[in-house]
Amino acid sequence: MKQLTTKEMQGLFHVYMEKLAYMRDPKGLYEPIEYVLAIGGKRIRPLLLLLAYNLYKEDVEAVFSQAAALETYHNFTLLHDDLMDKADKRRGKPTVHKRWNENTAILSGDAMIILAYQFLMKDCPTQYVKPVMEVFSQTALEVCEGQQWDMEFEHRNDVSVDEYIEMIRLKTSVLLAGSLKIGAILGGASEEDARKLYDFGIQIGLAFQLQDDYLDVYGDPKVFGKNIGGDILCNKKTFMLITAFEQADAGTRTELMHWITAGDYMPEQKIAAVTAIYNKEKIGELCQKKIEDYYGQGMRLLEQVQVPQENKRHLLDFVVGLMHRNL
Amino acid sequence: MKQLTTKEMQGLFHVYMEKLAYMRDPKGLYEPIEYVLAIGGKRIRPLLLLLAYNLYKEDVEAVFSQAAALETYHNFTLLHDDLMDKADKRRGKPTVHKRWNENTAILSGDAMIILAYQFLMKDCPTQYVKPVMEVFSQTALEVCEGQQWDMEFEHRNDVSVDEYIEMIRLKTSVLLAGSLKIGAILGGASEEDARKLYDFGIQIGLAFQLQDDYLDVYGDPKVFGKNIGGDILCNKKTFMLITAFEQADAGTRTELMHWITAGDYMPEQKIAAVTAIYNKEKIGELCQKKIEDYYGQGMRLLEQVQVPQENKRHLLDFVVGLMHRNL
Repeated sequence: MKQLTTKEMQGLFHVYMEKLAYMRDPKGLYEPIEYVLAIGGKRIRPLLLLLAYNLYKEDVEAVFSQAAALETYHNFTLLHDDLMDKADKRRGKPTVHKRWNENTAILSGDAMIILAYQFLMKDCPTQYVKPVMEVFSQTALEVCEGQQWDMEFEHRNDVSVDEYIEMIRLKTSVLLAGSLKIGAILGGASEEDARKLYDFGIQIGLAFQLQDDYLDVYGDPKVFGKNIGGDILCNKKTFMLITAFEQADAGTRTELMHWITAGDYMPEQKIAAVTAIYNKEKIGELCQKKIEDYYGQGMRLLEQVQVPQENKRHLLDFVVGLMHRNL
Repeated sequence: MKQLTTKEMQGLFHVYMEKLAYMRDPKGLYEPIEYVLAIGGKRIRPLLLLLAYNLYKEDVEAVFSQAAALETYHNFTLLHDDLMDKADKRRGKPTVHKRWNENTAILSGDAMIILAYQFLMKDCPTQYVKPVMEVFSQTALEVCEGQQWDMEFEHRNDVSVDEYIEMIRLKTSVLLAGSLKIGAILGGASEEDARKLYDFGIQIGLAFQLQDDYLDVYGDPKVFGKNIGGDILCNKKTFMLITAFEQADAGTRTELMHWITAGDYMPEQKIAAVTAIYNKEKIGELCQKKIEDYYGQGMRLLEQVQVPQENKRHLLDFVVGLMHRNL
């Protein structure tokens, strides 16, 4: 059997997702699920699962159902997060609570959690059912914890960098890490390899999220895909803002606070002023340094995984590609 | 080992639930869960699981975690249903979205689904993990389907008795049936016994729900625990109302429609008028007949379960007790 390229894998998995049979009555429950899953996106989590599995075994289609479980769970989190954040759009399309209503968003999201568990169990070799379920449940619960911290941080002005890192670890990293670990378990990896791949996922997840924070300020709007300065306008407590508060002298801090509490301003003016403070305090460089630290640590962990280096090429290329997607 | 009485079992399980260790940070996520689980209630589903297990094995404490899973899932459904129905109280206490807020109710409910899966897996013998998970996921998904039908029926005036029965089967019966089946599987029952116990649960679940519909009209307010006529006042499409519409002649139907669409009325007057129609059409008797049918069918299924009749006494007494709790 020849090894599939990542693109071929993506293509096959895309077809699999489109054919996934869960639709039944009542349509009012399942149509919003179909809608959310069809929006697509980058399918990063299932790909990580497949690529981790592929370090050990070639027949990646054997674990498509588990990959679909991760994608379903991730999309459930987007659905309920959008509801909680009252977001109108997701990837340019109306969110479920806008297109249908809030109750539909609640109930269809609930059903997606259960569907994710069903996909996870489907054709799962008996010896892996328990470890896979344990990693998944632990991960899924931690994602909820991350969302809870994120919501609580909105109402706090004393969030530390450590607390922020812990929040993004839970909200973003653990699901990437869990995807890799589940792929490794299903591939028959040693416990140590599975743990290393998990830790690798944590590190690159943190790097990705900090990069997102960085690009919100310094990204190329033509490449970034979101408007530059979005986090600044909504006073999001990102690594950039928290670090600026920690680093700045009293005068600069007052200036920063002025912009955060200002009720009436021109958006471009606020973005320019806060960015100027970041420039002065070299927050961009600090953020880049942190990203490199996490990224480098992740790469060292991947190196230690006990499979031939050439087997890691696809996983490595995929992660490098994600890392540079917006630079 | 001597067999525990149902009361002893309830007592031990109550202590187990109180000591259940899931509380951790962020408190904002886990405190509402603790609050909901502490409200208690009759704990019917875990008891059914334990009693079904007890048909085959005596060490019921071995499956307390699975019983807790069912109770956690049931309480999740109450939490999210109350949010969707905008109910202010549950068992006399403020609902989670009232005591905290809607986002807390959404997220803590989500976490409860995952906790339920964790409890279900805990100390579950390897050979039963897969069948138990399959029954649970299927059941959990069907409960969501039942809730969706229930919400859709509110906006429809053409719900048939068959559709109504299917809705309450999904919303109420399958979780009772699933509890019994999971208990049976864990006890090592034959597939046929497990299926019979499941079907028994479906039948008694339908009987319970129809009894609830009946007692809303004809119950003793001192015993029923809810105000008599609540369903009538909110035009709930119960077996009583749907059957009245199906049975009545054109004149009576018009009268019934008048009360359903009336905007301005004295509550007692509406209850009295609709009850009078039910009396005239003998809806109470029709409902009682239906209850006896389901109940009798359930009992015949239980009789067929291949364990000595004396082993079934506790389960039987418990179900009879539930059936007569409000008469």
